Amino acid sequence: MIKEVSVLRPSDHGRRYELTSPTAMPKAGGFLWNQRMMIQITCRGYATAQFMQPEPAKYAYAPNIEAKTFMQPEPNYYAHHPGRFVYIKDLETGQLFSAPHEPVRASPDRFVFSVGKSDVAWTVENLGLRVEMVMGLPTHDVAELWTIKVTNISGRPRRISVTPYFPIGYMSWMNQSAEWNQELLGVVGSCVTPYQKAAEYFKNKHLRDKTYFLCETPPDSWDARQQAFEGEGGLHNPSGLQEPQLSSSDARYETPTAAVQYRLSLNAGEEREYRFLFGPAYDEAEIRTMRSRYLSKEAFARTADEYAAYMETGRGCLRIETPDKELDNFVNNWLPRQVYYHGDVNRLTTDPQTRNYLQDNMGMNYIKPQVARKAFITALSQQEANGAMPDGILLAEGAELKYINQIPHTDHCVWLPVTLDVYLAETGDYGLLMEPVRTENGDNFTVFERFSRAMDFLLKLRDERGLSFIAQGDWCDPMNMVGYKGKGVSGWLTLATAYALNLWASVCEHEGAAELAERFRAGARDCNDAANKHLWDGDWFARGITDDNVVFGIRKDPEGRIWLNPQSFAILGGAAGQEHVARILPQVDEQLTTPYGVQMFAPPFSRMREDVGRVTQKAMGSAENAAVYNHAAVFFVYSLYRLGGQQDRAYAHLRQLLPGPGEDDYLQRGQLPIFMPNYYRGAWREFPRTAGRSSQLFNTGTVSWAYRCVIEGLCGLRGDAEGLVIRPQLPSGWDAIRVTREFRGATFELEIARGDVGEVIVKLGDRVLPEPRITGIKAGETYRLSVVVPR
Amino acid sequence: MIKEVSVLRPSDHGRRYELTSPTAMPKAGGFLWNQRMMIQITCRGYATAQFMQPEPAKYAYAPNIEAKTFMQPEPNYYAHHPGRFVYIKDLETGQLFSAPHEPVRASPDRFVFSVGKSDVAWTVENLGLRVEMVMGLPTHDVAELWTIKVTNISGRPRRISVTPYFPIGYMSWMNQSAEWNQELLGVVGSCVTPYQKAAEYFKNKHLRDKTYFLCETPPDSWDARQQAFEGEGGLHNPSGLQEPQLSSSDARYETPTAAVQYRLSLNAGEEREYRFLFGPAYDEAEIRTMRSRYLSKEAFARTADEYAAYMETGRGCLRIETPDKELDNFVNNWLPRQVYYHGDVNRLTTDPQTRNYLQDNMGMNYIKPQVARKAFITALSQQEANGAMPDGILLAEGAELKYINQIPHTDHCVWLPVTLDVYLAETGDYGLLMEPVRTENGDNFTVFERFSRAMDFLLKLRDERGLSFIAQGDWCDPMNMVGYKGKGVSGWLTLATAYALNLWASVCEHEGAAELAERFRAGARDCNDAANKHLWDGDWFARGITDDNVVFGIRKDPEGRIWLNPQSFAILGGAAGQEHVARILPQVDEQLTTPYGVQMFAPPFSRMREDVGRVTQKAMGSAENAAVYNHAAVFFVYSLYRLGGQQDRAYAHLRQLLPGPGEDDYLQRGQLPIFMPNYYRGAWREFPRTAGRSSQLFNTGTVSWAYRCVIEGLCGLRGDAEGLVIRPQLPSGWDAIRVTREFRGATFELEIARGDVGEVIVKLGDRVLPEPRITGIKAGETYRLSVVVPR
Repeated sequence: MIKEVSVLRPSDHGRRYELTSPTAMPKAGGFLWNQRMMIQITCRGYATAQFMQPEPAKYAYAPNIEAKTFMQPEPNYYAHHPGRFVYIKDLETGQLFSAPHEPVRASPDRFVFSVGKSDVAWTVENLGLRVEMVMGLPTHDVAELWTIKVTNISGRPRRISVTPYFPIGYMSWMNQSAEWNQELLGVVGSCVTPYQKAAEYFKNKHLRDKTYFLCETPPDSWDARQQAFEGEGGLHNPSGLQEPQLSSSDARYETPTAAVQYRLSLNAGEEREYRFLFGPAYDEAEIRTMRSRYLSKEAFARTADEYAAYMETGRGCLRIETPDKELDNFVNNWLPRQVYYHGDVNRLTTDPQTRNYLQDNMGMNYIKPQVARKAFITALSQQEANGAMPDGILLAEGAELKYINQIPHTDHCVWLPVTLDVYLAETGDYGLLMEPVRTENGDNFTVFERFSRAMDFLLKLRDERGLSFIAQGDWCDPMNMVGYKGKGVSGWLTLATAYALNLWASVCEHEGAAELAERFRAGARDCNDAANKHLWDGDWFARGITDDNVVFGIRKDPEGRIWLNPQSFAILGGAAGQEHVARILPQVDEQLTTPYGVQMFAPPFSRMREDVGRVTQKAMGSAENAAVYNHAAVFFVYSLYRLGGQQDRAYAHLRQLLPGPGEDDYLQRGQLPIFMPNYYRGAWREFPRTAGRSSQLFNTGTVSWAYRCVIEGLCGLRGDAEGLVIRPQLPSGWDAIRVTREFRGATFELEIARGDVGEVIVKLGDRVLPEPRITGIKAGETYRLSVVVPR
Repeated sequence: MIKEVSVLRPSDHGRRYELTSPTAMPKAGGFLWNQRMMIQITCRGYATAQFMQPEPAKYAYAPNIEAKTFMQPEPNYYAHHPGRFVYIKDLETGQLFSAPHEPVRASPDRFVFSVGKSDVAWTVENLGLRVEMVMGLPTHDVAELWTIKVTNISGRPRRISVTPYFPIGYMSWMNQSAEWNQELLGVVGSCVTPYQKAAEYFKNKHLRDKTYFLCETPPDSWDARQQAFEGEGGLHNPSGLQEPQLSSSDARYETPTAAVQYRLSLNAGEEREYRFLFGPAYDEAEIRTMRSRYLSKEAFARTADEYAAYMETGRGCLRIETPDKELDNFVNNWLPRQVYYHGDVNRLTTDPQTRNYLQDNMGMNYIKPQVARKAFITALSQQEANGAMPDGILLAEGAELKYINQIPHTDHCVWLPVTLDVYLAETGDYGLLMEPVRTENGDNFTVFERFSRAMDFLLKLRDERGLSFIAQGDWCDPMNMVGYKGKGVSGWLTLATAYALNLWASVCEHEGAAELAERFRAGARDCNDAANKHLWDGDWFARGITDDNVVFGIRKDPEGRIWLNPQSFAILGGAAGQEHVARILPQVDEQLTTPYGVQMFAPPFSRMREDVGRVTQKAMGSAENAAVYNHAAVFFVYSLYRLGGQQDRAYAHLRQLLPGPGEDDYLQRGQLPIFMPNYYRGAWREFPRTAGRSSQLFNTGTVSWAYRCVIEGLCGLRGDAEGLVIRPQLPSGWDAIRVTREFRGATFELEIARGDVGEVIVKLGDRVLPEPRITGIKAGETYRLSVVVPR
């Protein structure tokens, strides 16, 4: 049912994915964004859109008062979920269908859901009519640009009605209304964002509390009230469509909607094209401006070109040609797009979690390193006086730490050197370290000093055994009850602290701060020694020790016995020697590996373990907490690449981060391979029905690391202070690959092949380089390299 | 379409209301409660239930993550709104309908929605089958008891399936699942109430996070996963019903549901009866207990009797027989029931607003005065050191002030003497005043002293002109921007302060505190003088003066020109002399009176007036803020009864508080007359389509006052320190009424008729009383009085 389209359109150098059944993967969708908005839309027409003003807000709402919350995995769709639909009715027979698929759910003769990098499109054929829908976004404004084209493919004249239906939903308990605006040629809904404190009024009064749906072509009739349109017929057969005209309704503290109807006759082969604009606005003047700016054929075409160009600036620094064509497509197109999304909009929040902010910007090093540079300054300017990093980084005036950012987590400092590592490798810009950064509390330290202070904080954040406190959570699998009394420690954080300290020590060495370097290296050794002493369980590292001194994540635990992250970071941070690794890897294979990826832990908890508490966003006692968390999985991959000699294992696990190949796998995961979700359902042994299913949530630290794994690991193209090191780690099944890598302004074209060599040999033109490393790189140059790697 | 049923069932001494069309008033419903839960259910089967643990919680959820909020007016229903349904399918023809009406919405051959005081029931006939559904509650536990009976009325043998479908909805983002439990014979859904702070875990771990749906009779098949049951068919034609059996699905972090199917053959005339239990539980043990306690024919019958007896304890103190039979029914049955609900459960909140708490308990004086007595002590034990009353009264350990209770309002002290007035009149228990009440801050004062302190606080809460500050709001129409800078004043509060002070001065006089009485009377005069000087606008009193010294609610205002509450309280508090009244009343008639009641103000605001701000829960700029707020309307009625000589006007306005008579009126209001809603839509002149429509919200301070108006005003039966005063105010169209009044343990049976008298004449047996007042009342006695009132 899934078909990959190999035609590249001139306007879109990436590929498209097409889905030819609306029922095979009902939650599969695409997403578009710009710096002020994001929309995720499914193949069946359900949509979730939000825009920033500056906090996330909606312009199409649920039918009830929905809670404001962080973006949730596994969205649940239901009949009145917000969406974008068009009803098509045969006026002679009374037959009805809707495109893309909801709400009528008629079986189409043909269905194509087509996701491109800069648009989302559908072709639906039914009753001898073809409906083509395309959604695009502007590059800067908040609006959806919709084209709906109807073609008569029945070979005979037809009389039909075409009724776009864009439900607006329950806007607010504090006033909501909607009506047709003849001047603007559209439905305009209005509300007041609820508030109770007078002070909030002054904030809220500037909000875009209007939702508009504008028509380029005047419709024959319209409805602005949900109940008038839907009536007793229900969404699958609205009462409004059982009459010759829609009822010209308005909504007065009733649920608004936008439905407009065109009645038309089409000769055989004739087509009709309509354009619509849907979005939020402050007032009618703004709606008028948006209309004149966007609502025409020319403006749609211009906007689509601009948007494609905007996406193209996020194309990344790598092109690969390997035997794995799906991987190529993903790495060359979709992966950098998802990395770009994270770095471009910071998950559309004003208070990204510090670890997310740093890792999302780590990916941005491969796209726009200047953005990443600025992010370090921004983050460090919010460092606390004791060297700690806050739980979230505030990006907008008046922003506040929300949701999980109000809960103390102890890992944020770790991510500073871990992500700086990529910045330095990509840019060689050690100058950043000398930048002064002033905080609100008046401190003024250089970046270098601030990093050292953060490392000192990590060193201090340990108990008398040398293990790192966990407080109410660390990262990725932050059990909240382990250390809330102030005693519990995190095995992972201890090991990750060692990793961070070692990375930072290397930077200190580069900067000539040998004494500091040794201090941090000693600290790392100390962490690793403590971990080996208290947490090594014979075949793997434990996950932690509770407030009441219970070691967990160990052999004798019937549930939550082995955790992935401590193992990966023991490899990265040096706690795991070769002997450890030899014991760890078979255990990961045996206990954690599934057809859908490596589980974060196993076995799943069947009930709450009170001394350990919540796992990620799901509580214990839920099978889902033994998920394939891709963020954890990708660290395991990265640790394997760092380890070396594990290229087959690393490739296999890397490959599992995206679905396919194989239709069964796509169907089980329910997702097009246009992004890596934050998790796939785990508990494969216990709950096979749901195992492998995609979370459908594209916000995840996974992507920066996956891109890094491909660049640094698989392709082995990592910078150092003076140049580019070349150490590919091809899986054994591959004989050769081609790579184009942009690096420090130069372009590297590499032909990498196996040969009878003992180590990597690199030729520049005809010249064999003395080591697999190029220095003296000139921006603007193209370097053609042939690389031979051992068989 | 609406038919009042005059049959009284032995188990229910009240009447029932029946609705014979599911589409005529789609939001019309009934409600049941006990001290731990409440359920509101519509004629079409949509339901909103909550229970206290101790904060309000749900066990049947929306399909998305719904916000927690105060109870909203005008609930919006949509396909996946929680509800209670049963699908009936003819297995021979495949035809399908559902009862009560949703989700299939088939046109029934016969439909009866029947709301009684202690149950809600339906009879739906379609396809030659009769479905009878009855819902009841226990008196103490949280559960719904459902009986579903199916009868073959087609006169021929039938094969059908009966599929109760009780959607559980989106339980939690923190784990949700459901499965069939063969031991319990039901679907059990489980979740973890979301939390983020570790401290919340310890609160949440005791929550009833399970939802069960238990069957008395083992079904043939079942589904526990919404999507499995609903499938592509949709709720109006679920996929699960297109197969011979339901699919035995479970839900694993998927939306749970409870659908069970019985396949049966029914001979002509044969019937089958099923019983089900639906509710929340902590664990399986509790579910087991509930099953054995309730799920049998005998237990259902016993529970129905107990519940009817529980309702009967709230029957109130008045029975009337007047020419207005609808009023009789409402006053004798439904009005005390709604009063009882308020006093019994305090609107199912743990932090009722202070004014609501006091007024709800004011009503309780007519039902269980001891409850009201205790409420005064509870409220006063939370009085602040400066005499102020807090914005809400905390009723449960760990309760907090939520929502609007976090916004400072200035009126709470007013309600102390206003509601004490009824307590003293009903009980004569001046002993309450001597009770010592200690607060958390260590103060220890008597009730009397606390009232005086509250009155002193009101006197202090005024500006140099003698007008009362409004802060961020007062009552009923609390414009939040008038006084947020600390200068704006409330006309209403100034006038209400005078009313409160005068009432309290009378109590002081009774208690022999003449000096204090004079001080408070002088304060009242001062308030009234200030109001007359600064707020009298020639024909009515202004609503207030803003921070920037703009008087509003006056003749020159094109919107919000005249407000009802200042006029009512000017009458009650004495600011309005006869001349004022003569000017005010015609203005109320002309500007505020509509066919659906007296608007709170007029004309409606078409846009935000920034210096005035929000009005009630709706923002300005919304037509709805010119609503018929029944709480305001009933005060106008009360003020007319206190004024005297206004019996026709008072009766007319009192009568408008409930819908009917006349089918058009019922249809427009969309409500059965089983409760007074908090408002009817206003803006009758501007938005006639929606004017009159019921808010469907039964939480309102209106009811205590409406009952008081009937008792004190219409029937004229008010107590004083020594006895009962009798001054009926019959509308001029009435010649006679009969009244039974319970008072201080005695029963008074009154025959009230017009006669040629100059003033009210009362005969006890044959003896004419020297004044219309009975003293020396003996508890347990029955007094038969004949009363003659002037023509």
